[in-house]
Amino acid sequence: MNTFTLNERLAADTYPIVDTDDFYLGLNKNALIPWLILVPKTSEVELFRCSDDFKQKIRATVDSLALFCQSHFDADKMNIATLGNVVEQLHVHIIARKTDDCAWPDPVWGNTKFAAYTDDDACSVINAVRLHLNESSVD
Amino acid sequence: MNTFTLNERLAADTYPIVDTDDFYLGLNKNALIPWLILVPKTSEVELFRCSDDFKQKIRATVDSLALFCQSHFDADKMNIATLGNVVEQLHVHIIARKTDDCAWPDPVWGNTKFAAYTDDDACSVINAVRLHLNESSVD
Repeated sequence: MNTFTLNERLAADTYPIVDTDDFYLGLNKNALIPWLILVPKTSEVELFRCSDDFKQKIRATVDSLALFCQSHFDADKMNIATLGNVVEQLHVHIIARKTDDCAWPDPVWGNTKFAAYTDDDACSVINAVRLHLNESSVD
Repeated sequence: MNTFTLNERLAADTYPIVDTDDFYLGLNKNALIPWLILVPKTSEVELFRCSDDFKQKIRATVDSLALFCQSHFDADKMNIATLGNVVEQLHVHIIARKTDDCAWPDPVWGNTKFAAYTDDDACSVINAVRLHLNESSVD
């Protein structure tokens, strides 16, 4: 979809993981909480307004990533959300929560604690997610 | 599903709208922000771990309710989320946000402002949602 441009803030806040015909997937740069952001390539700002086929594709990918993240990060709970109050471009948060993370049990938005990934740690997560997507059939 | 028992906190925080074989739907008692809570009748705590058929049913209902709420409440943005950090029982938040609501642009969780519905206002919303569900085919 040639008309897709990733929102500047989403670009600034994430490390790119994959960029497919249907979505951009990034890793939030805050190393304190494993947090993927999937940006469907559509001009629609509400996922529920997208076509059934597109919703199904995006949700299958989100489900697959959530399953992977829950296992990979040993998460106690996954938080899945489409908010879009600050950044209008449609994006899905896929967040792996632990009962001892810095924001628990609050939602992560508004959490002001931040730690940068080391290059090695960021690469490790990115490569693990890429491997999962390559091994699954959802992308 | 006879084994389903609505979590006490979800019960305390909502006015019942409908109770079907597949889900309980309630209206959050905070009148400041139109906010539905759909509780799928499953012992699974993550929607992405449910069967494809059940996910599809629940998501079709959530999509239909989100479309209805956006129109009925003239919402600027819908917030759709499954968090479950405080109440483990699987539940989906369907929240109609306006750029002038008391929490905007922050998420609603953690917002401490509260106003009770009048009986008339609560009934009006509940009846409108029930009418929508009756007129649609998703329940």
